[in-house]
Amino acid sequence: MGRRILVVGGLAAGPSAASKAARTNPDAEVVLFEQGDAVSYGVCEIPYHISGEVKAEDLAPFTPEILRATRRIDARVLHRVEEIQPHRRTIRVRNLAGGTTLEEKFDRLVLATGSRPRRLGMAGEEARNVFRLKALDEGIALRKFVAQEHPRTAVIIGGGYIGMEMADALKSLGLDVTVLHNAVLPMKGLERETRECVREELEKNGVRFVSMAQTGGFVRGGDAKITHVLTSDGSFEAGIVVVAIGVEPNADLARGAGIRTGASGGILTDRRQQTSVDNIYAAGDCCEVKSLVTGRQVYIPLATIASKAGWTAGENAAGGSAVFLGAIRAIAVRVFGLEVAQVGASEADAREAGFDPVSETITGWSRVAVMPGSERVTVRLIADRKTRRLLGANIWGREGAVLRANTLAVAIQQKATIADMQQWDLAYSPPFTPLWDPLLVAANAMHKKLGIP
Amino acid sequence: MGRRILVVGGLAAGPSAASKAARTNPDAEVVLFEQGDAVSYGVCEIPYHISGEVKAEDLAPFTPEILRATRRIDARVLHRVEEIQPHRRTIRVRNLAGGTTLEEKFDRLVLATGSRPRRLGMAGEEARNVFRLKALDEGIALRKFVAQEHPRTAVIIGGGYIGMEMADALKSLGLDVTVLHNAVLPMKGLERETRECVREELEKNGVRFVSMAQTGGFVRGGDAKITHVLTSDGSFEAGIVVVAIGVEPNADLARGAGIRTGASGGILTDRRQQTSVDNIYAAGDCCEVKSLVTGRQVYIPLATIASKAGWTAGENAAGGSAVFLGAIRAIAVRVFGLEVAQVGASEADAREAGFDPVSETITGWSRVAVMPGSERVTVRLIADRKTRRLLGANIWGREGAVLRANTLAVAIQQKATIADMQQWDLAYSPPFTPLWDPLLVAANAMHKKLGIP
Repeated sequence: MGRRILVVGGLAAGPSAASKAARTNPDAEVVLFEQGDAVSYGVCEIPYHISGEVKAEDLAPFTPEILRATRRIDARVLHRVEEIQPHRRTIRVRNLAGGTTLEEKFDRLVLATGSRPRRLGMAGEEARNVFRLKALDEGIALRKFVAQEHPRTAVIIGGGYIGMEMADALKSLGLDVTVLHNAVLPMKGLERETRECVREELEKNGVRFVSMAQTGGFVRGGDAKITHVLTSDGSFEAGIVVVAIGVEPNADLARGAGIRTGASGGILTDRRQQTSVDNIYAAGDCCEVKSLVTGRQVYIPLATIASKAGWTAGENAAGGSAVFLGAIRAIAVRVFGLEVAQVGASEADAREAGFDPVSETITGWSRVAVMPGSERVTVRLIADRKTRRLLGANIWGREGAVLRANTLAVAIQQKATIADMQQWDLAYSPPFTPLWDPLLVAANAMHKKLGIP
Repeated sequence: MGRRILVVGGLAAGPSAASKAARTNPDAEVVLFEQGDAVSYGVCEIPYHISGEVKAEDLAPFTPEILRATRRIDARVLHRVEEIQPHRRTIRVRNLAGGTTLEEKFDRLVLATGSRPRRLGMAGEEARNVFRLKALDEGIALRKFVAQEHPRTAVIIGGGYIGMEMADALKSLGLDVTVLHNAVLPMKGLERETRECVREELEKNGVRFVSMAQTGGFVRGGDAKITHVLTSDGSFEAGIVVVAIGVEPNADLARGAGIRTGASGGILTDRRQQTSVDNIYAAGDCCEVKSLVTGRQVYIPLATIASKAGWTAGENAAGGSAVFLGAIRAIAVRVFGLEVAQVGASEADAREAGFDPVSETITGWSRVAVMPGSERVTVRLIADRKTRRLLGANIWGREGAVLRANTLAVAIQQKATIADMQQWDLAYSPPFTPLWDPLLVAANAMHKKLGIP
């Protein structure tokens, strides 16, 4: 009989690990436990379901039945793993439907317990018109709530990228939207100029952005709903409230088993995704990841990283020898008509990691300037003064920003220098790209800024 | 007094070299000679002027006056350089307006004499409804001809990328368009699957594509116009004819001065863009260029290469020490609704250069599949079996093909392997990119095809 591989968590890294394990080792028995009632759904698509762009049935293409039939994974929803006994190689699992507890033996265990939304810790946070957007059912519930109860106002607490996506989605449904944010500009982690542009785009589209807002509490109405959010800047009417103040790693189960975690609370793994405990792997939002720019362990809860790390964990749990080297942090978001992307280190990250960062910003065109549909694209590069290596970039514009950011993501990972970038031979075609692509314009400007060697 | 830098050719590489020279050395006297009556215009935009997307006045943003006023370049149009006397460091220049001939001394000379369209060498080729698209006036004349004489039919001789752009442009003006091509599929140099897709797109849009066509001659009508094109497949009515069978380097002037040229007839330079003759530099379509993939000298007449090589020639002519390392061949074209791009070596190129090329094709999505507007994107990668290095790629689709091709262009230049590609951390955002970008899907498929090391 083949080895028994248990996977805990059914969202992104978990199904990815389970699929890869089953494919890598056809003799293995692969069982996946998920405490919720759905697996493998598109968390990142939830804002686009709320806006009406994506249908509910398209959010969850994989059911437990499909995983079983097509991927040879025994997927058990409504099963919560409550304890790991590493020495006995067992886990204790509660069947939430029946209430019974089982012990399951494993040869290899993969933890993909994900993240959980941060809470404000205030009375009223559980009211039925307060939503987080971490689970499929909440996203569907929010859309239903808007459709049935026609709230006129929305308050979004948190001006990160989920906050931006939700502002866009709720505005498109006709709500009056307020974003409360605990800094002057939205989207911490991006460069100042980018953040100013995002704020402008919000305001241009009629979203009220309240900077340096401290949420003080909620005012409850008569029917288990919040009516207002109280802040240091006054009270805001709220037909619905979205709390999007970030996530934290769900690593309690791992810590209970003596598995090492890092400064963020995320599980530490090696590049084979093995934890500090033999035979136990981990992947996804419950883990830290190595920054390919700074070499440090960081916490970047993104599905792209989760799925690659999940593959690696699954392949290795099944007896393979895959590695996942790390991530650079690559983020893209649509804010109304604006594409906004960040790749690699911010200037602040770079400085903190010991680089001597130099930044330069240029504005170019998405296509040949005189072609219909051509839009301004702004590129901000961050390079290391000494090595002249590209460390990070922000790109924004109404067209062609995100895919260009991905080109820079590759450049960062391939350790391109500014001199390399100046030599880039890129395709030029008037309907798609100008003769001097904004990426080349940026490289030339940065070269000038760095001075002749 | 500063050095005297003469530049021959006013289209792409010439103005680029002259501008850079004037900027690099503020004491230099920079004179540019152009035999036509315009400088620095957008040849690549001509098809989009013909379609009506770009206005005539937007084709030529730089006049000789602007070059003089803003860039300190003494630009002389209607001046043909007829001879170089390297030992005396002089050139003989004919003023085409006055007919006089002058001798001009130089300290450094930059040749940017460009390319010329290949000719069929058939009687009737000079008829007033036969056009090539190498010069601004021809593009403007073609559009005027269509507007004034309302031809119903167009025959395009040549199925390369200019032929494709012209088919698109003329079809959009309502003409009945036939493309005569000397091979089974259009766009030689692309992979078979890409070419099949392009042919399909032509036919889907009502363009008649005649494969393996041998142009036999023209039938002349009464008013200095062609009425039909004769081929091995019969006669085609032609209210206008576009001859787009490629270009060849314009290197006669250089050869006359004893400057070395390569197998294609293009001028050979070192990576400082210096020719085999002291004090004479060259750049652009009159030159060969080093392939960054195969290391060989190749002929790639593209504006992107011309402008970078021009910069390098200009900087060095002015006393700087710039290098231009070479090019990979990066081409993009819009064929009706299709974005088509090629970067790096074709499978055939790669094999001929001594690689052991492996190709793999996948089809992914431009955005998250269930997002409105998401389109299929097909990626064909060409990798070297031994080193696993990415050598080339074709990408096509109705959205997000060209910018993704540019990401692969960078990967090729940064010498990425397929293993590197699998690790790429790319931004994922439903309106712009799927969780597994087509580039990652392609890398994973290629990894599988190459087998476990």
